[in-house]
Amino acid sequence: MELWFTETFGDLRAAWRVNEVLYHSRSKYQDVLVLDTVSFGRMLVLDGCVMTTEKDECAYHEMLVHPGLLAHPHPEQVCVVGGGDGGTVREILKHPTVKRVVLAEIDEDVITVSRRFLPRLASCLDDPRVEIVIGDGAAYLANHPHSFDAVFSDSTDPVGPGIVLFEDTYFLSAKSALRNEGLFVTQCKSLWVDVKTAQDIAARLRKHFGIVLPYVSTIPTYPTGSWSFLFASDKIDPRAQCAQDRQKLIAKTARYYTSAHQAGAFAVPAFWGVD
Amino acid sequence: MELWFTETFGDLRAAWRVNEVLYHSRSKYQDVLVLDTVSFGRMLVLDGCVMTTEKDECAYHEMLVHPGLLAHPHPEQVCVVGGGDGGTVREILKHPTVKRVVLAEIDEDVITVSRRFLPRLASCLDDPRVEIVIGDGAAYLANHPHSFDAVFSDSTDPVGPGIVLFEDTYFLSAKSALRNEGLFVTQCKSLWVDVKTAQDIAARLRKHFGIVLPYVSTIPTYPTGSWSFLFASDKIDPRAQCAQDRQKLIAKTARYYTSAHQAGAFAVPAFWGVD
Repeated sequence: MELWFTETFGDLRAAWRVNEVLYHSRSKYQDVLVLDTVSFGRMLVLDGCVMTTEKDECAYHEMLVHPGLLAHPHPEQVCVVGGGDGGTVREILKHPTVKRVVLAEIDEDVITVSRRFLPRLASCLDDPRVEIVIGDGAAYLANHPHSFDAVFSDSTDPVGPGIVLFEDTYFLSAKSALRNEGLFVTQCKSLWVDVKTAQDIAARLRKHFGIVLPYVSTIPTYPTGSWSFLFASDKIDPRAQCAQDRQKLIAKTARYYTSAHQAGAFAVPAFWGVD
Repeated sequence: MELWFTETFGDLRAAWRVNEVLYHSRSKYQDVLVLDTVSFGRMLVLDGCVMTTEKDECAYHEMLVHPGLLAHPHPEQVCVVGGGDGGTVREILKHPTVKRVVLAEIDEDVITVSRRFLPRLASCLDDPRVEIVIGDGAAYLANHPHSFDAVFSDSTDPVGPGIVLFEDTYFLSAKSALRNEGLFVTQCKSLWVDVKTAQDIAARLRKHFGIVLPYVSTIPTYPTGSWSFLFASDKIDPRAQCAQDRQKLIAKTARYYTSAHQAGAFAVPAFWGVD
């Protein structure tokens, strides 16, 4: 028997050969599937969309976290919205200045399933510095002004229920939740599929933050294999500043991030519209 | 009717929705297919592998050519091995110092079909500076010592007949065909699929060149969406040197390359093994 899992994304499809279906159920919010794939290891799929795999999660989680967090001179308090698989929290905890990470995840089942099937991502959730809040991350941020040095939005995409995490109200809450020199980073879209929507989201962020920069990573299991992030801050430019002692520490265990990515990741395609 | 073209690459598959099959025939060397896809425009497929599409060819051709060629202080004579679709020649001709480009393509049908269906790539082949040689590019280089400032290897992949273009004899011919300060660039592989083979090819190049550097681009229609190139020279480091007047000129029409890519493209995943 040949077993393949196929994700259809508009007029594109990608498929991975599958050894075994490890888990499949419906949570209160979404369809939750865990596959063991031949070429990317274990794969978490929510509502038919690949969220992360053991092989390429490094290219997502390391690049969501490090370019921004290394640019902050001394991050202590960090919040993750979404991110129930634990990968983002794991990368944040690699920064020794960090004293506390709040994970605000709406779907507890994602955490439970990740703990069981993706321990390399989720086991960090047991770290004593981690506080798990099951609930609406947008509401959490709105209720915790001036609390964080960095907020990472590790959400589903700007379609359906995820769309609120790309809108003005949310960006305003994220901004209000930041302390001085704070920074906000969100995963965004593939620039190859719809650069206009990504530019619109960046323009929305620019209403609230003085510095807004798109950057990219290569993530083979995401549509088109290339993914964007948006960095936002009032004071920090991650291309120009970086805590080099922490960077050396991060580089020791990184599978994707290197010092060359600190500026290099901000090289986005010319069709974004600036040079 | 729903029409999809699917490429299978080991344990991965990618598929694109197709409006129409524009051309399908067998040349002396390979199966040649041209599709009109919904999301990537016209697509050239050789032996079942996507070679180029109208939408993302910029990410391949601009990145094969410009990081290297901009690092050469005054390139005049350039050779392309393969590259029958014309995209690489088009980018080289954007450098006003270039007086002559030799295109050594073994399969004349690829040129004919590209002229007919991919005029945005192939029409530059009519430029008076272009000399087309139908034949074995490796033999051509071996027979033209000290003739070129840059050689670009725009070949099929290191499997089957394409494998000779990744071996010692060919690299030695390419080196011998270069003039002083010459540079060689080859497309390589997806680092996500088989980084070991890419490292082996780089090691082979290092036997002949003092400076060998991997770099990357995002190419959605290639397996994993991320592709590598290898730059080789005895004297030039493209991260450190760049003809800024030509760079500004290139940037005016570039769809993918920006000045930030000149160094940024050399940020390869940490699993390549250096930082």
